[in-house]
Amino acid sequence: MELQLDGNGTLHAQLTRALKAAMLAGLVGSRLPPSRLLARELNLSRNTVLAAYEQLRAEGFIESRVGSGSYVATPLPAVRPAPPPPLGDVAAQSTRARRVRECFEHGAMPGRDVPGARHAFQYGVPMANPALSSNWARALSHAALYTSPGYPHTQGLLELREATCDYLARRRGVHALPQDVLIVGGTQQAIALIADVLIDPGDVAVIEDPHYFAIRSVLQARGACMRAMDVDGDGMTCDELPRSGAKLLCVTPSHQFPTGAVMSLSRRMALLDYAKRHQAWIFEDDYDGEFRYGGKPLAALRSLDEHNRVIYVGTFSKALFPAMRLGYLVMPPQLRRDFISAKWLSDFASPGIEQAALAHFIKDGAFERHLRRTAHELKARRQALIDGLRACSRGRLRIEDSQAGMHLVVWLPGHGDADVAGLIAHAQGIGLGLYSIAPYYLRPQDRGGLLMGFGAMSVAEIEQSLALFARSLDAVFPVLSAKPPPPPPAPRPTRRIRQGRSRAGSGSR
Amino acid sequence: MELQLDGNGTLHAQLTRALKAAMLAGLVGSRLPPSRLLARELNLSRNTVLAAYEQLRAEGFIESRVGSGSYVATPLPAVRPAPPPPLGDVAAQSTRARRVRECFEHGAMPGRDVPGARHAFQYGVPMANPALSSNWARALSHAALYTSPGYPHTQGLLELREATCDYLARRRGVHALPQDVLIVGGTQQAIALIADVLIDPGDVAVIEDPHYFAIRSVLQARGACMRAMDVDGDGMTCDELPRSGAKLLCVTPSHQFPTGAVMSLSRRMALLDYAKRHQAWIFEDDYDGEFRYGGKPLAALRSLDEHNRVIYVGTFSKALFPAMRLGYLVMPPQLRRDFISAKWLSDFASPGIEQAALAHFIKDGAFERHLRRTAHELKARRQALIDGLRACSRGRLRIEDSQAGMHLVVWLPGHGDADVAGLIAHAQGIGLGLYSIAPYYLRPQDRGGLLMGFGAMSVAEIEQSLALFARSLDAVFPVLSAKPPPPPPAPRPTRRIRQGRSRAGSGSR
Repeated sequence: MELQLDGNGTLHAQLTRALKAAMLAGLVGSRLPPSRLLARELNLSRNTVLAAYEQLRAEGFIESRVGSGSYVATPLPAVRPAPPPPLGDVAAQSTRARRVRECFEHGAMPGRDVPGARHAFQYGVPMANPALSSNWARALSHAALYTSPGYPHTQGLLELREATCDYLARRRGVHALPQDVLIVGGTQQAIALIADVLIDPGDVAVIEDPHYFAIRSVLQARGACMRAMDVDGDGMTCDELPRSGAKLLCVTPSHQFPTGAVMSLSRRMALLDYAKRHQAWIFEDDYDGEFRYGGKPLAALRSLDEHNRVIYVGTFSKALFPAMRLGYLVMPPQLRRDFISAKWLSDFASPGIEQAALAHFIKDGAFERHLRRTAHELKARRQALIDGLRACSRGRLRIEDSQAGMHLVVWLPGHGDADVAGLIAHAQGIGLGLYSIAPYYLRPQDRGGLLMGFGAMSVAEIEQSLALFARSLDAVFPVLSAKPPPPPPAPRPTRRIRQGRSRAGSGSR
Repeated sequence: MELQLDGNGTLHAQLTRALKAAMLAGLVGSRLPPSRLLARELNLSRNTVLAAYEQLRAEGFIESRVGSGSYVATPLPAVRPAPPPPLGDVAAQSTRARRVRECFEHGAMPGRDVPGARHAFQYGVPMANPALSSNWARALSHAALYTSPGYPHTQGLLELREATCDYLARRRGVHALPQDVLIVGGTQQAIALIADVLIDPGDVAVIEDPHYFAIRSVLQARGACMRAMDVDGDGMTCDELPRSGAKLLCVTPSHQFPTGAVMSLSRRMALLDYAKRHQAWIFEDDYDGEFRYGGKPLAALRSLDEHNRVIYVGTFSKALFPAMRLGYLVMPPQLRRDFISAKWLSDFASPGIEQAALAHFIKDGAFERHLRRTAHELKARRQALIDGLRACSRGRLRIEDSQAGMHLVVWLPGHGDADVAGLIAHAQGIGLGLYSIAPYYLRPQDRGGLLMGFGAMSVAEIEQSLALFARSLDAVFPVLSAKPPPPPPAPRPTRRIRQGRSRAGSGSR
């Protein structure tokens, strides 16, 4: 009998597995070799063999007859050869799995690591912050000692919901009660729950174009019919809204993702009016309202909602760090029990200790102290990026006005996505990761641009990266004139994105 | 102008909100009162009023004319009265939400707290364990300092997947590679992902009867057609399997939930054979394989699976504590990308710091040391419960054989669920929480029983609780004979649950 031990786990477990496979494959005959013999053959201790036989006996694979040794059990199924496992892919096993495959086949997820890049203007990478790590370690350690180890409340820890309400009232103008708040595993889970509660296949969902790609994927996986609306300097355009038949409007009014536009009051009112008239719902994604560099923050759309049509979602991924996976959803009261059930069915509840640590972190002021310090540092990084881009632009770049967050959109006027791909490829060749804005659009665009995240880079790193960027820019889009560079041209209205009134007026374009 | 401040947040935010509401309600006229006047009227500082006006101006609600004060902005939407928000429920907004409502309407979730009970035989409540809390606090605190704060890998931290594979090979006979493992937010999320990947409305899913209620709810929410199969002492019966048309079989072979039966080898083989023939999938829920009190543990069904039809799911909720919300799913390779996509769409990834802490906890041996200590204590608790039940039984109770976990099923032969409800009501009246087994069945049963969790109670608490239990038992099911109690009757075969061969022979019946 040839037995191959696979090297995983104890010798006794390996031998048990190997014997079982041999028996199923019909290689053993009706009687097993005496333990002493097998031990010698395999160079194992006899105790190991006895333990394996004992295990096989307990599992019903072998039977012992007194004085006559161990026999392969007879209710063992018909002896058959072990086929190689079918390792290839199978067809999608559900409609949803099929839709997800289609959705991800049309292009990889944007924003991934660029192989070989020393620097990358990657979006969604948090600022390294040792002070935050050690504060958070203390908060977690304290919470682990004093938090109930049992199943957490599905809606979320009351202390965290209270702290969230207090924060929302002070900083975002949103007046919510703890009973309206659902603690979720980040914005991504919030979107999934919104889809669970609201979306049937064929329902129309409006998204901004460009938009946060994860929203689109989740809704497409449910079979929603996507309607993309143009974005200009006043946020998402609303002209086509009345004819859209939309049941759900997904918007980022405080800071449009990714362009950075702030939605004007009249459009906010138009959204609310549409939702009220058509019994539709608004998903307000307030993903990075915490970091602003100019102007007063506008109150959230939710604060204007008199008919309970707005589902407000915030996250701690941006304000603290993404590994945390905590966010919150302010539920319209009519949908409260549906959202709580949907959360229960998804994962029962979010982790208890982290919730307790976060509640304490917010209540004792550590959270807002962290926000102030981080905003100060992010402002310097943003300014370094803007200054550097202006210095190397020579008319080739247009920086989209944006007064918040950790990224900027930079257009390359007169160039489409194919040209931008050339720039990205060149930059990658010299060790710089750049990211096209194209994957953030549902509909193909005739103009190219970059989404430049700056949150994770120090000012020095930004300056080094910009030197590489300028090299690539000059190589791919050389400035032909030998004369000194002309002043940057006045912003030209383009077909899709109009110049809105520049409320904050950073002059960054 | 009457303004009502709501007491939430700063005075400035309260005043802003109140003014906004008043403007929208048409109570302000075209010009706002001078700030000095309003400050005096409301007994606020003038700076507060100026800040509120400034905020309203930034949000486009008011316009200033030089030398002439603040005016309500004219693009403000038509002045309208603020209606009371529609706080009542609305119709379910999606097919799924409707199914969920139906599912939860047919009875509350079982196992909830019993109001007023001093003691409760509640299932799913963890053992209080100060040593575990302080070890876990240390692990978390260390992980917080050394774990990347960025988005965790969707499939889960490699270190945790490696530690899980090693543990599975040594303790459960499951041979998996880190690439086969998906880290999830507990068994509940595993079920939801399985449904995402495999289930379309109308697909047939087989469940054990009785079963873990959360499985049923998740599958019903997706519109699966549920087929319940009887359970006996050898686990789920398989006679009706070939005619079921099932695409998914949900089983607990190591320790049937809740009866405790261990599935026989021949039935395991019948399941695998069905899955292979019909291209069906098996969800093996190994929810509490860590704690065993007798017999050798059977290797997992997954270890016999030669055709990659078994999805193996384990959780740390039982082995450690439920507030953690971490578990794992061993994916068949053909479904790997579908499961990872489904996890990505659900919540991107599980929290990074907890994953790192858990990986370290397993790798340095703390996890298995904890398991050994806990199993020792649980064994004593289980024995105290069995001894106490036997002492008070006098022929009225039958304890289901179960050699693992943190609960027992106790039948009341000759009594249906209505009688059991009487016992539960009496017990609640004297401060003891008891739980019927009825909600764990899909099909109504003609015999009554209790699911008795013992994990959270000390031996002393179990003894106190059993004194209350005996009082209720005597009050509701008095032993009429005045003679000394007869020896307990030999186990009678019942219609639905046969006496299987008692492999472990605890003699607990």
